[in-house]
Amino acid sequence: MKNQRMMRLLCGESEKEAIIILDICLLGTGGMMPLPYRWLTSLMARYNGTSILIDCGEGTQIAMKEKGWSPKPIDIMCFTHYHADHISGLPGMLLTMGNAEKTTPLVMIGPKGLSRVVNALRVVAPELPFEIRYMEITETEQSFAFEGFRLEAFRVNHNVVCYGYNIVIDRKGKFQLEKAMALGLDRKYWSRLQKGETITLAEGTYTPDMVMGAPRKGLKVTYCTDSRPTEGIIKNARNADLFICEGMYGEPDKKEKAKEYKHMTFYEAAAMAKEADVAKMWLTHYSPSLTRPEEYKKDVQAIFPQTYIAKDGWSEELLFEDEQE
Amino acid sequence: MKNQRMMRLLCGESEKEAIIILDICLLGTGGMMPLPYRWLTSLMARYNGTSILIDCGEGTQIAMKEKGWSPKPIDIMCFTHYHADHISGLPGMLLTMGNAEKTTPLVMIGPKGLSRVVNALRVVAPELPFEIRYMEITETEQSFAFEGFRLEAFRVNHNVVCYGYNIVIDRKGKFQLEKAMALGLDRKYWSRLQKGETITLAEGTYTPDMVMGAPRKGLKVTYCTDSRPTEGIIKNARNADLFICEGMYGEPDKKEKAKEYKHMTFYEAAAMAKEADVAKMWLTHYSPSLTRPEEYKKDVQAIFPQTYIAKDGWSEELLFEDEQE
Repeated sequence: MKNQRMMRLLCGESEKEAIIILDICLLGTGGMMPLPYRWLTSLMARYNGTSILIDCGEGTQIAMKEKGWSPKPIDIMCFTHYHADHISGLPGMLLTMGNAEKTTPLVMIGPKGLSRVVNALRVVAPELPFEIRYMEITETEQSFAFEGFRLEAFRVNHNVVCYGYNIVIDRKGKFQLEKAMALGLDRKYWSRLQKGETITLAEGTYTPDMVMGAPRKGLKVTYCTDSRPTEGIIKNARNADLFICEGMYGEPDKKEKAKEYKHMTFYEAAAMAKEADVAKMWLTHYSPSLTRPEEYKKDVQAIFPQTYIAKDGWSEELLFEDEQE
Repeated sequence: MKNQRMMRLLCGESEKEAIIILDICLLGTGGMMPLPYRWLTSLMARYNGTSILIDCGEGTQIAMKEKGWSPKPIDIMCFTHYHADHISGLPGMLLTMGNAEKTTPLVMIGPKGLSRVVNALRVVAPELPFEIRYMEITETEQSFAFEGFRLEAFRVNHNVVCYGYNIVIDRKGKFQLEKAMALGLDRKYWSRLQKGETITLAEGTYTPDMVMGAPRKGLKVTYCTDSRPTEGIIKNARNADLFICEGMYGEPDKKEKAKEYKHMTFYEAAAMAKEADVAKMWLTHYSPSLTRPEEYKKDVQAIFPQTYIAKDGWSEELLFEDEQE
C-alpha cells in the first residue's frame, strides 16, 4: 500500500488525498499484568501528523521503543479506565516524553476522575516541559473533534466505569465539476466550497453540497477493552475497518469466569464482530493464564472468519477504500 | 557453593550454620527509563525465608518473572528515593503480589513522604489482600532490625532526599567448649547462652560472652544509587562483600554532567570502592545513552580491579567466609 501511495505522490496525482493514511500499532496484547513475553494492551495511532495513544500500562513505553515509534509526538492520550494495567505506565511515559523534549500540549481523554488520577500518579513525575489538557468523558457516548478526525468514546460494561473508543476519519464526497460549472460561480470560490465554506455573494448563497458529491466511506478503528459484550459496543463498532477487542479467555469453559470479572471470551467477541459487520477483528488483552491464544483460532474463526489472534507490535496502515491495492 | 552446602547438609554437619545464605539478584541495570534491552535498577535479596526488594521501577515485576523469582514472598520493600525510575513499578507489583495471594504484611522503608507517595500511586491499586507497614527514615543513618539481619539506611547526595542501603548479617563467635566446661555450668543452659540469653542462677549470673568467641565476619551487601560520591557512602560500604553502586556514565568526559545531575561516573564509583576496601563492586544504573558500558571495563578496573560491569539479572549466593569454596 505504501508503494502505491508513493507512486501516486511521485506522479503528482491526487496528492492531498494520497496522504490520508491511518497508521496503527497494537503495542501489547496482555491483560492484568505485563509478562516477559507479552506487553500490556495499548494502541498507538498516527494520523496526519497527530499521534494518539489509548491506554498506557507498565512497559508500554518499552513496547513503543521496541517498535521504533516515538513518544515525542504523542498529542492525545485516551484511557479506557483506571485499572493499573491500563494506566500505570503513565508517569514513566510522561517523563520519557519530557526527556524527548516534547513541549506541545498533551490532550488527555478519560472517564470521570481523570485529572485526580493523573495528578496522583504524577507524584513521581511532577515536572514536565509540556502542558496537560484534560477532557473528562461525562456522557454515555461522547465525540471529541480534532483536525481531520474524531475520537468517539462509548461506555462499556466493566466492574468500574470504562469506555471504548472509535478513531473515525470522515471522508467528504468528490468535487463535482459539472455541478460547479452549471452553477455559474466564479472558479476562484471552488476550493473554499470544497473545504466546507459557505460563500455569500450579491447574486446568492453557495453551500458546499452544491458542488460536492455524497460523503464517501471513511475509516474507523474500534478499540474495546475491558467489558462484557454489549449492544453499545456492537452499535459503535458497526462497519469498522478494524475492530480491536478484548478476548480475555480462549478456553470454552471460562465463560463464567469472564462473567464474574466482567471480561469477554474469544467467542463473545467474535459474535459481536459478526453482528457489527466489521471488516476484521484483532483479539487482545489475553489473560496471563492464556499462554497460547492461537490454539483457539479455528474455533473463534468458525464464528467470525476475519478474526485474528493479535500479537504484540502488530501494525497496519489503513487507507481509504479506493486507495487500497 | 550450593553443592558444598548440600553436601554438608546431607552429612548432617553444622546444619544450622550451613543454611546461612544470602541470595541476591540485580534485576536491572538501567537508569532514567526502562529500555527494550535493559530493565531499571532494582535489587532483590532473599535470606532465611525473607525476601527484600530495593527499588521498584517500571518493569521490575517483569524482570523478576524473567529471572524466575516470585513476588509473592516480598516481605520488605525499600526505596532509595521517589524518582519515577525507582518506584513507578510499585502499583503493578503490589497488584501482582496480591494476585499471587500474598496475605502477610509488607514492610516498606523509605525517605520521608513514604506513605504519601505510596498512597498516591495506589490510586490505581486501591485493594490489596495484605497490610502495608510504613517505616519512614528520619535520620541521616538509621538501622532497621529484622529476624537475623539488619537493613542500614544511609543518606547519600542526590538532587532529592535519597538513601543507600546495607543488608547486614552479623555472625556470632563460635561456641567455646573449653570455656563452657571451665565455667562449671550445667550443660542444659549452654544453648540458651549460645542464643544470646543471660542466665541468672543462685550461684551467679552467666552472660553469653562467657562461652562465646569474638564475633566473626558476617555478610554485607551495600547498594547505592543515585548519588555523587560521599564520605558517608565509603564509610557505609567499608569491607562490604559486594558493593552495588551506580555508574551513570562510563565516558571520561561526562564528569561534569554527572556533577550537574548528581550522579556518578564509573571512575568515581571505583575510587570509592577502593577506599572502602570492598571485596568487589558491581556497577549499575547506566544512562540510556550508555549502550555499551563494558567498553570502559579496563579503564575502571585500572582504578579498582574487582569492578564488574553488571548486567540485568546477575545473581549471587553469598556465604559466610569459611563456607566458601
